[in-house]
Amino acid sequence: MFSGAQVSLYPMSDDFVGIILGSLGALDPWRDRLRLETDSLSTLMVGPPDILFPAMRDLFCAAARSGVHTTMHATVSRGCPGEPDDPICAPVAGPARDASLADRIAACRDAVAAAPLLQQGIAAQLSLYPLGVGHHMDEIYGCIEFLKASGTFDRSKNFCTALRGDAGPVFETLGQAFTGFGATAGHLAMDVTVSANSPSDR
Amino acid sequence: MFSGAQVSLYPMSDDFVGIILGSLGALDPWRDRLRLETDSLSTLMVGPPDILFPAMRDLFCAAARSGVHTTMHATVSRGCPGEPDDPICAPVAGPARDASLADRIAACRDAVAAAPLLQQGIAAQLSLYPLGVGHHMDEIYGCIEFLKASGTFDRSKNFCTALRGDAGPVFETLGQAFTGFGATAGHLAMDVTVSANSPSDR
Repeated sequence: MFSGAQVSLYPMSDDFVGIILGSLGALDPWRDRLRLETDSLSTLMVGPPDILFPAMRDLFCAAARSGVHTTMHATVSRGCPGEPDDPICAPVAGPARDASLADRIAACRDAVAAAPLLQQGIAAQLSLYPLGVGHHMDEIYGCIEFLKASGTFDRSKNFCTALRGDAGPVFETLGQAFTGFGATAGHLAMDVTVSANSPSDR
Repeated sequence: MFSGAQVSLYPMSDDFVGIILGSLGALDPWRDRLRLETDSLSTLMVGPPDILFPAMRDLFCAAARSGVHTTMHATVSRGCPGEPDDPICAPVAGPARDASLADRIAACRDAVAAAPLLQQGIAAQLSLYPLGVGHHMDEIYGCIEFLKASGTFDRSKNFCTALRGDAGPVFETLGQAFTGFGATAGHLAMDVTVSANSPSDR
């Protein structure tokens, strides 16, 4: 299964180039498990579905620690039938897909509760797109049930769901939503925006 | 049919607030046909599918004219079955859906060729998500055929398609892709990023 993301980091500062370049070192612990390709619009991250969000978390937090209002957008995908399989995408720890939906929701909540606190408040919004057949609506409603009970739920918006809290649990919630629901090998896409240090929140 | 977008504007400048506030006047010609709601992450635009992209174009170009590296992200949707119908969303001019796919591709290309040139170069990338049943793959392949022949096609990337050119034809291409393909009343979502004045392009 091919999995990855097109990731863009936006520091709202005259020094945006310096902040972006200064953040890239945060990806070093992940580099041997990711393939990265950058162009003027985004950086392609190809790798296992379960490390995409931890890697994005570390990149985003490094930029946010500048104190500058910074946002990140990612187009995240797994199981796209048009993409060739890639050994680098093999999950580090596959989800326990033989468990019942209720047990998986509980496991996702436990993972969020156990996420490290990074002392960086963030807001996020996500849209989850199950594509093609093989995604039972039960799985989607299960994901929504998880989001609402995750401890990071902010509110439902048109076209997306908003989260808020410390970067650790919020990114864990995003990662669990991406890997924990929908057909294991099905095509799932996520459109996610993360924001820190917004003057609107002060 | 409910249609709209969650739109975020990101000027990479210390004066991002001033640039955003200074751009909002560009939405004035569209305001009577849109419902707008802003929070700290994005602005919800609810309105007819065929004016969403022209309105986003005018907003983005107003910000890009600052000369600052500016990006815009939008999560665009029509026909979401979870959203109530809204009279404000009635299309201004419905696409000629009784025409053949080949004739519709030609009509979309004609619309792009007729788009006004705005003297603002931009890059864009889009992901189109047809959701649920009722979207024939012929429609999706037809949209890709249109994008490649639109005159604004840059290249195919993982998870998205990149466009490049003057803001007029590029936004027209995005709008035609959104309204011209897929089931007329089907659920279609688009994840789109637009960029201007990037130092990577200099």
